[in-house]
Amino acid sequence: MLPSCNTRSNPINTVTDTGRLIVLEGGEGAGKSTHASGVRAWLEQRGRSVVSTREPGGSPLAEAVRDVALRQWPEGTDALTETLLMFAARAAHLHSVIRPALQQGRDVVCDRFIDASYAYQGAGRGLGTEAVAALERLTLAGLRPHLVLLFDLEPELGLQRAHRRGDVNRFEAETLEFMRRVRAEYLRRAAAEPSRYAVIDAARPLPEVADEVRRTLEARL
Amino acid sequence: MLPSCNTRSNPINTVTDTGRLIVLEGGEGAGKSTHASGVRAWLEQRGRSVVSTREPGGSPLAEAVRDVALRQWPEGTDALTETLLMFAARAAHLHSVIRPALQQGRDVVCDRFIDASYAYQGAGRGLGTEAVAALERLTLAGLRPHLVLLFDLEPELGLQRAHRRGDVNRFEAETLEFMRRVRAEYLRRAAAEPSRYAVIDAARPLPEVADEVRRTLEARL
Repeated sequence: MLPSCNTRSNPINTVTDTGRLIVLEGGEGAGKSTHASGVRAWLEQRGRSVVSTREPGGSPLAEAVRDVALRQWPEGTDALTETLLMFAARAAHLHSVIRPALQQGRDVVCDRFIDASYAYQGAGRGLGTEAVAALERLTLAGLRPHLVLLFDLEPELGLQRAHRRGDVNRFEAETLEFMRRVRAEYLRRAAAEPSRYAVIDAARPLPEVADEVRRTLEARL
Repeated sequence: MLPSCNTRSNPINTVTDTGRLIVLEGGEGAGKSTHASGVRAWLEQRGRSVVSTREPGGSPLAEAVRDVALRQWPEGTDALTETLLMFAARAAHLHSVIRPALQQGRDVVCDRFIDASYAYQGAGRGLGTEAVAALERLTLAGLRPHLVLLFDLEPELGLQRAHRRGDVNRFEAETLEFMRRVRAEYLRRAAAEPSRYAVIDAARPLPEVADEVRRTLEARL
């Protein structure tokens, strides 16, 4: 049987049948990668075995797909091709990393997951919700993150931070208008299902944000 | 407006609004690549402008996806990942090669297309018809080949020929049982829609097969 994380919450210190999938989402420069290690440390301090991973990527095959998806191609990358690549990488990642870990009872901390497809391809690139939903049904087969930490930030500030960091990929080079659509879609999804999402104001100094992450984990897990 | 090739047939020597998509399909060792140049020559002799291409691949992005899809990965490649990769390559190929050529009124001769996904992933890998159909709806948006030449061959003979040729990729290394499922699905699809498919017995010597290809084009186009 495939593990599902949308079943009832398990108390943290009991033996669980399956691990939990905890996802960090947000626009560029929101600090997801930094806070992912904080989430991992918090879980390990409570005796959990944790797999840290990211999307797109997270397995050798999926990382090769990531390279294709993030590269600048002379022919351009249309929205549908980009979306199918993201879901191909996700299917490989689920098959070889996420599902096996959850089945072994390990928690998975993932930097971006399904919500990013709705935000970046569905809204940002304008592919629409229905196409992403069709691919979600095909690829996730009912699996849903247990908790999504949404690091919310004004796009202006996020892009400033991303540029300061220096490594600007095809997405980080997108326009402010694009990033506004991404942010609006993330917030719309979080508002529609508050029990699975926590919106975290990522504009504040790092230690304050880390504190809120910790408080959120204590309240939700 | 996107071109559609399932509208009525146009006489070959009139000016057409859109080109025609002519696809060669079949298992390993059936001689598709050889006959593709014959089809091209036949069309050019009649004054048509022709784009020759292949799947998976056919554009720089799609060829990079092909490399990922055909490589042997330590983690394995599950059927869904493989299928999503094929459709990502197809979406790029449609976007940058096939649709622009058809819109310019050029004919496209393609070595494998949508039927290969039903045969190899849907039947061969056992993913099932419905998953492939969902991806077809999303990616092709109603575009259908004008004519599919199905080069039919006993899997035993096809694999012998492929091995003699020397370059055995992940698919050509599949079992006879797999190739039998592929062949049965191709034949099932051809039987269901005889106006769009021509089944060609590819076991005969090359010149005989080439003759039948020519006669088929004369009758169908």
